[in-house]
Amino acid sequence: MRFGLFGGAHRAPTGASGDSQTYRRFIDYVAEAEQLGFTSVFLVEHHFTGSGQISASLTLLSYLAAMTSTLRLGTAVTVLPWHNPVLLAEQAATVDLLSGGRLEFGVGRGYRPNEFHGFNVDPAEAADRYAECLDILLRSWTTDGRFSHEGKFWTFRDVVVEPKPAQSPHPPIWVAAGSEGSIRAAAASGYRLLLDQFATPDQTFERIDWYRGATTAAGRVFDPRAVAVTRGLLLLESNDPAVREAEVNRRITALGKINQSSQVPGSSAPPTGSFFNDSRLSTEEAAILGPPDECVERLKVLEAAGVQTVLFNDLWGGADRLRRFARDVMPAFA
Amino acid sequence: MRFGLFGGAHRAPTGASGDSQTYRRFIDYVAEAEQLGFTSVFLVEHHFTGSGQISASLTLLSYLAAMTSTLRLGTAVTVLPWHNPVLLAEQAATVDLLSGGRLEFGVGRGYRPNEFHGFNVDPAEAADRYAECLDILLRSWTTDGRFSHEGKFWTFRDVVVEPKPAQSPHPPIWVAAGSEGSIRAAAASGYRLLLDQFATPDQTFERIDWYRGATTAAGRVFDPRAVAVTRGLLLLESNDPAVREAEVNRRITALGKINQSSQVPGSSAPPTGSFFNDSRLSTEEAAILGPPDECVERLKVLEAAGVQTVLFNDLWGGADRLRRFARDVMPAFA
Repeated sequence: MRFGLFGGAHRAPTGASGDSQTYRRFIDYVAEAEQLGFTSVFLVEHHFTGSGQISASLTLLSYLAAMTSTLRLGTAVTVLPWHNPVLLAEQAATVDLLSGGRLEFGVGRGYRPNEFHGFNVDPAEAADRYAECLDILLRSWTTDGRFSHEGKFWTFRDVVVEPKPAQSPHPPIWVAAGSEGSIRAAAASGYRLLLDQFATPDQTFERIDWYRGATTAAGRVFDPRAVAVTRGLLLLESNDPAVREAEVNRRITALGKINQSSQVPGSSAPPTGSFFNDSRLSTEEAAILGPPDECVERLKVLEAAGVQTVLFNDLWGGADRLRRFARDVMPAFA
Repeated sequence: MRFGLFGGAHRAPTGASGDSQTYRRFIDYVAEAEQLGFTSVFLVEHHFTGSGQISASLTLLSYLAAMTSTLRLGTAVTVLPWHNPVLLAEQAATVDLLSGGRLEFGVGRGYRPNEFHGFNVDPAEAADRYAECLDILLRSWTTDGRFSHEGKFWTFRDVVVEPKPAQSPHPPIWVAAGSEGSIRAAAASGYRLLLDQFATPDQTFERIDWYRGATTAAGRVFDPRAVAVTRGLLLLESNDPAVREAEVNRRITALGKINQSSQVPGSSAPPTGSFFNDSRLSTEEAAILGPPDECVERLKVLEAAGVQTVLFNDLWGGADRLRRFARDVMPAFA
């Protein structure tokens, strides 16, 4: 079993000096994770939250490429409807080149109301924008000569997109999906599958079954490494139930704030459903929660169902929790 | 006098392995330049040449931020009409944060026919697109709360653009300008001035006079460090006239190829004029050309006219020429 990081967890308050320190802390955290045996980092991309979130994920991954040597560098996800496809292809290929072929490229349609509002993109167009952008990305990376594109949202004429990525034919494409239709479509296209941190183990296994089935149906061999499962990480030092309760509550509160910051400013819209769940049940069932032996046990359940890659989202534990994980949990999966 | 690099000089042939090696060589070149006493690198941004040019300049600068510690990291220039202003603000601010406030942000309208053609942008709109993008960039970096923008080309609603850059109020803005009107406008706005590598010393001094005059007229104190002069670097090891002739010819040929690659594919348009000059006279008069004593002399002419920053464009000399420059020329300006 391999372990990675999922986040942008270490957010900064708005303000130059605060941001700078917090970016630095996050970089140190990622660099130490590599030393501890973690094998990947997947960065979110978000905008306009007011909480100093990571927005330019590929720009940060490029810096992390220089600070690491083996870590796989992922986006989870790059929201295609916000981006010029050709500029995005160039940026991603540059990160892939600079990192020696370590980019894992996660893509999504977008789901946060505040981002559609801020970028002035109609959510009803998201699927078409996503599909057109992904099509142009793949053509950009794999076309040797020049090509032209005239689509619904973009026109490019006689372009040769360079540099080309280091990985051939292009960096792995990861899709964050939860519904049966999306998961089967990802498998049919040969994309990898990023599963969320909110679904219970049983829901997660059902999704992996859909993916495995659709992969086989498409005539491909299922590779367990094409699936990554994201989980909250709440490894505890203590068996004290009060400590456990406090950590669970802290996570629920933090998730609620993240959810609120993804709504249109001033709106009182209900929490976003499909990609998000800040219920107590979700944290208690889905997170890797508890003292070391319980965390091992929860991970063994995933492993027994064929999960080989788990990405941890830890909103405040920092390098200290990673060190304890590497010392007390990782050896059980060596 | 301070010396920097200007380029993207180390281009790669198309193809993954070639690109990767050449990016690596360029990174080593820049890192060594810092050790040798060069104080800045300004990266071009170009697209669709077919020669494996650097396209994602900020992505590469982010990597260079991690590989250097004092070098100023510039773009020369980021072509604003190609970019989503908010994404660009986020990317530039991220580089500024990650580098500890070392970003020098050069901006331009674009001038290459193949890029307008490829991105399907009407050159007649370039000035308006540039102005609107620059306006949004500055608002993004300097507005503490949320703002909205409804312009000719872009609409953003209730956005707070984060992270904020490390430099306050924002990274220095550099404008590549040559005409009197553009130069006076840059000075009036408080932007810095990037002068090209093609104009003769006398033309260059006239431009600095315009900039100085307009700065003073706007009630500001003229800072010589707000002007950088780009020059071709042809430091020669030999006094042999045949070697000199061969190097001059090599540069003229290389510039001609660059110019051809900036035309619309298949067009036989004449060379682009305003930002480009591949004449023999331009190289012979403007480049820092010759054995060490002649290079010192040519730089002393610039220094005497108040030039304090020279950025070198060297299309093939590599780290070896930088080392010779540091050993044989730099001490005359210590």
